Amino acid sequence: MKIILDAMSGDRAPAETVRGALLARAEQGLEVVLVGQEPILRRELEAAGGAYGSGISIVHAGEIIDMHDDPSTAVRRKKDSSMAVALNLLRDGAGDAVVSAGNTGALLTGATLTVKRIPGIRRACMAPVLPVGQYGAMLIDCGANADCTPEYLLQFAFMGSFYARKLLGCPSPRVGLLSNGTEETKGAQLQKEAFALLREAGEAGRIRFIGNIEGSDVFSDCAEVVVTDGFTGNVMLKTIEGTAKFLMRNLKEVMLRSPKNKLGAALLKKDLSGLKKLLDPGEVGGTPFLGVKKPVIKAHGSSDARAIASASRQAAAFVEAGVIGEIEKNIAHMRLRGDGAAEE
Amino acid sequence: MKIILDAMSGDRAPAETVRGALLARAEQGLEVVLVGQEPILRRELEAAGGAYGSGISIVHAGEIIDMHDDPSTAVRRKKDSSMAVALNLLRDGAGDAVVSAGNTGALLTGATLTVKRIPGIRRACMAPVLPVGQYGAMLIDCGANADCTPEYLLQFAFMGSFYARKLLGCPSPRVGLLSNGTEETKGAQLQKEAFALLREAGEAGRIRFIGNIEGSDVFSDCAEVVVTDGFTGNVMLKTIEGTAKFLMRNLKEVMLRSPKNKLGAALLKKDLSGLKKLLDPGEVGGTPFLGVKKPVIKAHGSSDARAIASASRQAAAFVEAGVIGEIEKNIAHMRLRGDGAAEE
Repeated sequence: MKIILDAMSGDRAPAETVRGALLARAEQGLEVVLVGQEPILRRELEAAGGAYGSGISIVHAGEIIDMHDDPSTAVRRKKDSSMAVALNLLRDGAGDAVVSAGNTGALLTGATLTVKRIPGIRRACMAPVLPVGQYGAMLIDCGANADCTPEYLLQFAFMGSFYARKLLGCPSPRVGLLSNGTEETKGAQLQKEAFALLREAGEAGRIRFIGNIEGSDVFSDCAEVVVTDGFTGNVMLKTIEGTAKFLMRNLKEVMLRSPKNKLGAALLKKDLSGLKKLLDPGEVGGTPFLGVKKPVIKAHGSSDARAIASASRQAAAFVEAGVIGEIEKNIAHMRLRGDGAAEE
Repeated sequence: MKIILDAMSGDRAPAETVRGALLARAEQGLEVVLVGQEPILRRELEAAGGAYGSGISIVHAGEIIDMHDDPSTAVRRKKDSSMAVALNLLRDGAGDAVVSAGNTGALLTGATLTVKRIPGIRRACMAPVLPVGQYGAMLIDCGANADCTPEYLLQFAFMGSFYARKLLGCPSPRVGLLSNGTEETKGAQLQKEAFALLREAGEAGRIRFIGNIEGSDVFSDCAEVVVTDGFTGNVMLKTIEGTAKFLMRNLKEVMLRSPKNKLGAALLKKDLSGLKKLLDPGEVGGTPFLGVKKPVIKAHGSSDARAIASASRQAAAFVEAGVIGEIEKNIAHMRLRGDGAAEE
């Protein structure tokens, strides 16, 4: 199993990306291709006590795509960037999956352009897993696609189901449609049309559609796959983040308010730090792209070595689970009936 | 000042609505018209030690709209409901504002139908105030209108600004457009088009437009008015609720985990109960409808007497502040240029 690591992207690259690669090699026996500026990567390898050749190889790329690059053109303009070169290697079969902690939009655009979508899939998407219930809850799409059609949402539902079954370990993933109420008649026009498609797929036994769910339901362990357009998904994700920060800030203020409170806080301190991590995006792990022909994992921008190693493990699992094969096999059910549109 | 109270609607009606009316009378000198089944209301008044005639009057209405009634037809079908009759009284000038703790959708449809929209306003909307910053942050629209046009969002921005200035006490309310990123180019198609309209209004000095804000920014005290379509607004509101519940549940679990933790929790208990209330929808106060010709306040469904009295105070303030007059005065700026469409 060979992981292609975009070693120059991310807040803590290249030191932490290289150390993450070494960790992945040591702990999981993965081979890693480090993509980036060769002299710099050699230097980091030496500094970390690792060695080129022992399952770690380097492919040179002279440029770097940063957070200010326009996501929709970055990979095309910076053809020699570590991100673009990594995606090329994946396309050409020089590795099994790509891991990158870089500019999300650029990675998604690049993956769609270079690695390409599975035939019949309209849009690649991103699906982080929230720490809810026994298996987790995937929010799909969480931001890649702001404007969606009902068909995109149908495809998100299927792809999320396959991923949840094969990688989250849930035998029968519940699929909910994020809406502004639970009644069947709820939703904006997009949700109303998507509901009909999802219900049909549910009745045909292809997905386990549980109906509409509200924003408040996401944490109540009612679905493993939460289907939404990327705009709403992004607002939801950011709102969770902002609400958690707000509450933790207020909690901290309460704890420091008086000597009595400070004592109480000290007694709780150890266990409270676990609470803080609960909704920390850095703890969520890497986020898979779904819908492209080969596995791509987006690691959090501030990933340290452990997070990079973890994303690499995720990538390997993604390869082995055969999710992409499952999507290809079922693509006929994931498209609108009678849709004569040519493959995009 | 006379408040028309839909006394039969809400989980704790009529006992708590009647007591709330008496509280409003006693504390604020408001006159209150109780609308509902006369014998029942008389009985509640007596039981609460209040008296018909001393600033409290009763108008009979034989039916009740409940949570199962279809919101879009309820007021038309149940013409003799306490909600429909209350709105009729407002339309006919028999009071200054309506307060109801009933079916939100029915109240909004009824208000639009009976009291009618301010000429030029496309859609009435609802705008709860989140407990952020010095003045609060209004989320507008929070659910009344699932599908919106850019013009609706422009109108929400203006109406929110006037309300924030006149009722939240903010001299120069900052207006942010809820989006999936802060860069100008972000947003689904709706947000992109609305951005242009808001920027134009901002450059003309009519609103203080601060640009796009993300879901995570809402709690960071960056805007008094958060503009969004009702679908996204509803998802955001419910997500805040669900995230807060999730964290408090986990916090509780931490606090009960061991004797040491229990001791710590006991020391913090008093101040922690304040934290719980922070995002409790029941604590947020009543939610004003903006865009109809006369003031309507939606009180929380589970309102007790104190919440009803509080919503009544809000209604009175709404009447006195002249927000509706401000909207009427500025309506020309709140419509798309060259829009020859007839008044709806």
